[in-house]
Amino acid sequence: MIKIDVLTLFPEMCEVVFGTSILGKARDKGIARLNAVNFRDYANNKHSSVDDTPYGGGGGMVLKPEPIFAAAEHLLDNLESPSDSADEANATPHGEGAKPRIILMCPQGRPFDQRVAEELAREKHLIFICGHYEGYDERIREHLVTDELSIGDYVLTGGELPALTVIDAVVRLQPGALGNESSAVTDSFSTGLLEYPHYTRPAEFRGWKVPDMLLSGHHANIEAWRREQSLKRTLERRPELLERAELTPKDHKLLERLKTELNEANAGNRSKEEETSF
Amino acid sequence: MIKIDVLTLFPEMCEVVFGTSILGKARDKGIARLNAVNFRDYANNKHSSVDDTPYGGGGGMVLKPEPIFAAAEHLLDNLESPSDSADEANATPHGEGAKPRIILMCPQGRPFDQRVAEELAREKHLIFICGHYEGYDERIREHLVTDELSIGDYVLTGGELPALTVIDAVVRLQPGALGNESSAVTDSFSTGLLEYPHYTRPAEFRGWKVPDMLLSGHHANIEAWRREQSLKRTLERRPELLERAELTPKDHKLLERLKTELNEANAGNRSKEEETSF
Repeated sequence: MIKIDVLTLFPEMCEVVFGTSILGKARDKGIARLNAVNFRDYANNKHSSVDDTPYGGGGGMVLKPEPIFAAAEHLLDNLESPSDSADEANATPHGEGAKPRIILMCPQGRPFDQRVAEELAREKHLIFICGHYEGYDERIREHLVTDELSIGDYVLTGGELPALTVIDAVVRLQPGALGNESSAVTDSFSTGLLEYPHYTRPAEFRGWKVPDMLLSGHHANIEAWRREQSLKRTLERRPELLERAELTPKDHKLLERLKTELNEANAGNRSKEEETSF
Repeated sequence: MIKIDVLTLFPEMCEVVFGTSILGKARDKGIARLNAVNFRDYANNKHSSVDDTPYGGGGGMVLKPEPIFAAAEHLLDNLESPSDSADEANATPHGEGAKPRIILMCPQGRPFDQRVAEELAREKHLIFICGHYEGYDERIREHLVTDELSIGDYVLTGGELPALTVIDAVVRLQPGALGNESSAVTDSFSTGLLEYPHYTRPAEFRGWKVPDMLLSGHHANIEAWRREQSLKRTLERRPELLERAELTPKDHKLLERLKTELNEANAGNRSKEEETSF
């Protein structure tokens, strides 16, 4: 069972996501223990304030170090395998896997991708820190967290949706989390390629038909068609992914043909455009 | 006011996010109209089933075309500025901005980033389609949607968290959505660089001090320090972002110095490692 704690100012929102769909089922089946902690409860001032204006001026508010340190250390103190002190836990954060990873969600973090998801899925305990993106006090980053992660190059109002996104990707990789075990391995990125097109009933919808190949019942030909579609879609949409994908000699040969076809199609489009502009 | 509809099997989860924090305030202030629609309500069969097994075999289920077409077309039919027919709306999806963008969240989509967020923030009406990532019937992709978006190269259990992530990024860019107007422009990626470190009270926490510069009160020096820190962090963590960032001649000069320092530091680390290995 993987244990996941989220330090947040919006625990109710996290709890609703934890109770929905695959995450909810994983929790019910005891595959994941999902817990949201409001770090405002650890504010040591009478107004329960968790942020303050930035030193040096400028707009926005910055999350103070004390409440987040206190909330994280309370979780660390309550670990089943007790560490001698929170300081020691901080000193060797990337230890033998017994100590939790403390992950700060922020746009400056290491880009999250399927490989990072697979890495995190092997951990026993993850603690996520979510705050307003306007800023965390830098000492949280320097002295508490073990990892900084970013889910993409865009700016959001808080770290909750990014943390929940990472948690969803990690929990679905736990054995038994998905009803159909094959799902986790055939999806996009697990093969390094984009997925082939899917079709289901009806065989004809508003005149648009399912490709004959998929109705043929010829398993080997269908597999070959799907592989070609996967390669074609990746080549057209995200060619940079092909550099890291695991490709067979047959794939390489297919790709050469697809590249030629794509170039010819593009040349055709260009000459059509030239015609139209006259 | 921007109008956003989400077609989903989990409207309750979307509604909770729509009611929380900045999104909730934007909704209350009339800046954004946020609405979740359960497309299961549009299933035209007695078991309200929305998915079926894939043609050609393989694991997982595929979302059927009918319920999603029906739900989207019901939204299109109810537009204030009526279009003659849903078919016409589909024929010219990227029209004058009057017609909604219909966005499918999927790993095969165009990578979402801050530039796409800024582009979508200028639209009047967005419709998001969220499903299980195991697959959509390809005819939804070919004949209904105007855009396919991916928030990153990882696999999730559904499109809800990705759609909510895009919505959060888009709504926070609406005028008045953020309390502090300066926040939207000084964040990471709006400048093309990663953000500089933030600090707030206390000036000393567990022996860790705020940099003297930020306590100096010298505004111009603080600005220069922050710019240098931004450049330094981007150079260290995401050097590829510098190619697209808007840089002044002074920035370029600074970067040359930072690169030299970074190379020297790396060389120092390497020789230390060599020493240790003896």
